[in-house]
Amino acid sequence: MTNPVSRREFMNLLGATFGTGALIRVGSALGMLPAVAALTRPVLAAPAPGAGTAVILGAGISGLTAAWELAKAGYDVTVLESSNRAGGRVMTLRSGDVVDEIGNRQVCEWDNEPHMYFNAGAARIPSTHRNLLSYCKELGVDLEVFINESKTALIQDDAMLDGKPIRNAEVSTNVRGFLGELFAKSFTTAQLDQPFTESEAETIMGLIRQFGSLDREMNYKGSNRAGYVSGGFIDHGVQKEIIEFKHLMKSRLISQTLSANEGETGPLLMQPVGGMDRIIAGFTRALGDRVKYKTPVMSVMVKEAGVEVAYLQDGVPQTITADYCFNCIPAHFMAGIEHNLPGDYMQAMKYIRRGEAIKGAFQARERFWEKEEIYGGISWTSAPIRQLWYPSHGIHKEKGVILAAYDFGNGGEFTRLSQAERVEWLLKGGEKLHSNYRQMVEKPITIAWHRMNHMLGCSARWGRSGGGMTMEEEGLYHTLQAPALGRHYMIGDQISFHGAWQESAILSAHWALADMDQRVRSAA
Amino acid sequence: MTNPVSRREFMNLLGATFGTGALIRVGSALGMLPAVAALTRPVLAAPAPGAGTAVILGAGISGLTAAWELAKAGYDVTVLESSNRAGGRVMTLRSGDVVDEIGNRQVCEWDNEPHMYFNAGAARIPSTHRNLLSYCKELGVDLEVFINESKTALIQDDAMLDGKPIRNAEVSTNVRGFLGELFAKSFTTAQLDQPFTESEAETIMGLIRQFGSLDREMNYKGSNRAGYVSGGFIDHGVQKEIIEFKHLMKSRLISQTLSANEGETGPLLMQPVGGMDRIIAGFTRALGDRVKYKTPVMSVMVKEAGVEVAYLQDGVPQTITADYCFNCIPAHFMAGIEHNLPGDYMQAMKYIRRGEAIKGAFQARERFWEKEEIYGGISWTSAPIRQLWYPSHGIHKEKGVILAAYDFGNGGEFTRLSQAERVEWLLKGGEKLHSNYRQMVEKPITIAWHRMNHMLGCSARWGRSGGGMTMEEEGLYHTLQAPALGRHYMIGDQISFHGAWQESAILSAHWALADMDQRVRSAA
Repeated sequence: MTNPVSRREFMNLLGATFGTGALIRVGSALGMLPAVAALTRPVLAAPAPGAGTAVILGAGISGLTAAWELAKAGYDVTVLESSNRAGGRVMTLRSGDVVDEIGNRQVCEWDNEPHMYFNAGAARIPSTHRNLLSYCKELGVDLEVFINESKTALIQDDAMLDGKPIRNAEVSTNVRGFLGELFAKSFTTAQLDQPFTESEAETIMGLIRQFGSLDREMNYKGSNRAGYVSGGFIDHGVQKEIIEFKHLMKSRLISQTLSANEGETGPLLMQPVGGMDRIIAGFTRALGDRVKYKTPVMSVMVKEAGVEVAYLQDGVPQTITADYCFNCIPAHFMAGIEHNLPGDYMQAMKYIRRGEAIKGAFQARERFWEKEEIYGGISWTSAPIRQLWYPSHGIHKEKGVILAAYDFGNGGEFTRLSQAERVEWLLKGGEKLHSNYRQMVEKPITIAWHRMNHMLGCSARWGRSGGGMTMEEEGLYHTLQAPALGRHYMIGDQISFHGAWQESAILSAHWALADMDQRVRSAA
Repeated sequence: MTNPVSRREFMNLLGATFGTGALIRVGSALGMLPAVAALTRPVLAAPAPGAGTAVILGAGISGLTAAWELAKAGYDVTVLESSNRAGGRVMTLRSGDVVDEIGNRQVCEWDNEPHMYFNAGAARIPSTHRNLLSYCKELGVDLEVFINESKTALIQDDAMLDGKPIRNAEVSTNVRGFLGELFAKSFTTAQLDQPFTESEAETIMGLIRQFGSLDREMNYKGSNRAGYVSGGFIDHGVQKEIIEFKHLMKSRLISQTLSANEGETGPLLMQPVGGMDRIIAGFTRALGDRVKYKTPVMSVMVKEAGVEVAYLQDGVPQTITADYCFNCIPAHFMAGIEHNLPGDYMQAMKYIRRGEAIKGAFQARERFWEKEEIYGGISWTSAPIRQLWYPSHGIHKEKGVILAAYDFGNGGEFTRLSQAERVEWLLKGGEKLHSNYRQMVEKPITIAWHRMNHMLGCSARWGRSGGGMTMEEEGLYHTLQAPALGRHYMIGDQISFHGAWQESAILSAHWALADMDQRVRSAA
C-alpha cells in the first residue's frame, strides 16, 4: 500500500464524509427508520346524514385501508382500480402470474406450490409497524419470521481476496477482532477527557474484548465465532485462520456486517405465510364488490356538493359522485387526469420523486444454499445485482424461489438491457456468490418498477438523500398533507417522509381519515 | 463515581480477566461453538453373517441415530428405553404431559392447541448443524425459523436506570455510540504500530462511524437506530434521548447486545414446526416396534460372543444378546447397573460432570409481548430467571407459551424451593421485565434437569469452563471414545466436547458406527 497517512491527516479524515456510510444507508434498507409507529387506527364517527359516500382512487394498501375503515364506519365506499389486481407495489408472483412491465411482459412459469412465490415489491414487515400488523391480525393474515441477516450467508467483492465469497461470520469476526484490538491498543496513549473508575474501565475493556472476541491480553488471534475448519464436536476444533484486515478493507461491503441489523431491518422482521399479497387478499375479501377493477379514472372534479369522478368500465364512461375522495394514484399520473385541484396542490404533486428499484428472481431447481448451511438471509456482492435473498420459508423443500437482484440505484441502466441481457446480468452476478448458480436456477423474472404498468416508479421520496428537507420542500409536503377543497385527500407512501413501507401508506390513510372525521364531527 | 483509574492502571486492566466475558459465554449459549459440522453420515456395510444384531441402550437422540442407521444397513436392532417416552432431554411439553421430576411431578394444563408447546430441553437448531438437519429432511420434520435476538426485546438490570427495562435497540445503539466515539477520539494520540494508507484510514473511520452511528465529526449524538419517541412516518420523528454510558455500564448485561448473535447462536436458528420432539417422533416412526419403552437395563455384560443385556419388561426380567451395544444411558447411572466394563472405562464415566440447568414456562393468557412490538427473541434480566423467551411461532394467536426462566448456573438453589416458591420466583423475575406479567401468565411448569427421572442431570461437560482440558481429562475422554472390549460403545452428547447440542449426540453415534463399520469391514 502506498500513500501512508500521517497521524494528523488521519485525524483530519474524521471530519470528512466517506462513501461507506452512505452506501450502507442505501444497502441495508431504504433509509434509516423510525422504530415504532404509534397505533393510529382512527375510530370514525358514523357518516353525517346525506354525506355517507366515499370514492377511493387506487387499490394500493393506503386506498384499501381507507376503504376498509370507512366501510366499517358505515360509509358507502367504492374503490376504483385501473389495473386488474389490487395491491400496487404489494405484489406477489406465482405460477401463471403476469409481470405487466411495459415493453417486457413476462409470465411466471414456476412450479405451482404454496412456497414457490416471490414478493416483487414489499417483502418485509418490521415488528414495529404496528398498524400493518394490526390489520394482519384483524384480516386473518398468518405471519411467520423473515430472516434478513444470516451469519452463514456470503460477502463477495471482486476487490477483496480475489473475489472469493466469504461467510458473513468470517468477515464480521475478523473485522471486529481487528477493530477491537486497535481500539484497545489506542487506549494505551489516549488522552481521554475524563478518568474512568476502575469498575468503568473494567466494563469498557470487557465490552471491547467481547466485541472483538479478543484474548486476555486484548489481542485478536482469531475466534471460533468465525467457524472451525473442522471438528469441535467430538474432537478438538481446528480454528479457521485469521483473514487480515488489509484484505477485508478492500471491500466497501464489510461494514454491512457491522450494521445489517441496525435501523429499520433491526427489529424482528416478518412476512405473511404464502406471500405479501395475502394482506391485500385480506382487505379485498373484507371489501367484497366495493373494489372495481379495470376502472381507470378519467377526471376528478371537486365540487361544492361532493367529488365527481369519471372513469371507464368495460370501456364505457361512468361517473360517480361521493362526499369524500381518497386518492392513492401515483402523483405523477395526476397530470394526465382531468381535474380541478388547486395549482399549489398540483405543483406539490409534481415535486415528488420516485425511485427506480429493480428486482430479479429465479426458480431454483434445488435449494443449493441449504447445502452451504444457508437458511434465509442475504448474501452481498460487489456485482450490480447487489444481493441474493434466500427464502426464509419452505425449508428443505425440493425447490425454492431466490431473489436474484435488488437494487434501487441503477434501475435506468438495467432497463436499457433486453430481457435476455438482464438474465445474463443476473446469472453473472449470482455466479460470483455461488459457482454453480447458472446450473441451479431457471425461469427468470425481472421487475423494473419504473416501467411497471399503472405504476411507472417505485417508492416516493421527499427531501434529499440523508433525510433533510428544505423549507420549500416542507411547504410542498404540507400542501399535500391536507385535503384539497375540503374533500379530496392524497394518500399513500407518497404522502410520507418514509416511502417504500406499507406502514407509511397506512399511516397516510389514517391521517386523512382522522382529518375527515374531525370535519364530520365538527359539522355535526 | 469514585476511585478514578490512571492511564497506567487502566492499561493494566487489559491483561486482567473480567467477569463480563465469562458471564456472556454462559449467557449467550452453552459455550462458544464450532460453526459447521461436517456431514458425517456413515455408510455402513451390510452386517457380517451371524453378526447382525445390535442393542441400543437409551432412546435419546444418539441412541435413535445409531438404531436408525443400523436398521437401514440391515441390522436387527432393539432399543431399550427405561422411561415411557423417547428423546431424553429432547422433550416437548403439551396439554396433558407429565413432568416427571422426582419429588415435583407436574401435569401440563395448557390449552390443547398445536402452537401451545414448550421445548423443555433442546430448543434451537443452528443452520450449521448439518447432520441433525439432514435427519430432519430425511424424516420429514418441517422446520421454521427460531428467533434468538430481537432488537425490541428488553434488557433489565436492577443496577441500571433504577431497574427500568430498556429495549435491546436502545442499549446497543447507545453502547455502540459511546464506544465508537471513544474509539475515534482515542485515535487522536494513538501511537499506532504502522501507518495506514489514506484509503485504509477512510475505511477504518467509515467502519467506526457505521458501528457507532456517529455524525460527520465522529460524535455520537443519538441515533434513530434506537427508535423514535414519536413520528417519523408522516411527520418528522422525535429522536429518543441518549442514554448515557455511565448509566448503561452499571449492568453486566449490556455486552449481550454486542455479542448475542456471535458464536453458536450466530447462524440462523431453526425449530421444528410443532415442537422439538417432532424429530424424536420422526425417528420412532421410522424405527417402529424396535423401540421398547419401560425396559430399564439391569446389567450389561460384554462377552466373547456378544453383549448380553438384562432388562425388565412389565417387571419381568428379560435378556437380549447382540453383537454390538450402543449405550447412551447417562454415564452416572452406569455405576448402578451391573456390568463387566473395564475399570479405566468406568473411571472415565465417573469423571463426566453434568449441568444443573433449569427452565420455567407459563401459558400466557394473551400474547402481551406482541403489544410491545416483541415478536420472538429473548429479554434479559439481572433477576435469577435470567431470560424470557417469546415464541417465534403462533404470531397473533390468542395465547402462547413463554419461557419464564432458563439458567444453567443455580439449579441447586432453585431445587431447594417448593413448586409454589419456584412459581413466585418466576413471577418476580418476569415482573421486572413486564409490569403486568403476573396478570398475564398462568399454569406454570418448572423443570430441573438434575432432578428429572431417568436423567438426573443436564448436559455433560468435559474440561474446565473456558474450554481447556488437562492431559488427564484428554485421556479419560479418549478412553470412552473407543469401544469397550470391542463391542460396547458409549454415545451421546456425553461423549463430545460440546455438550447440550443434539448435533454432538448425533456425531458421537456416527463416530461409533463408523468405528464399528471399520471393524466389520476389516473382519470381512
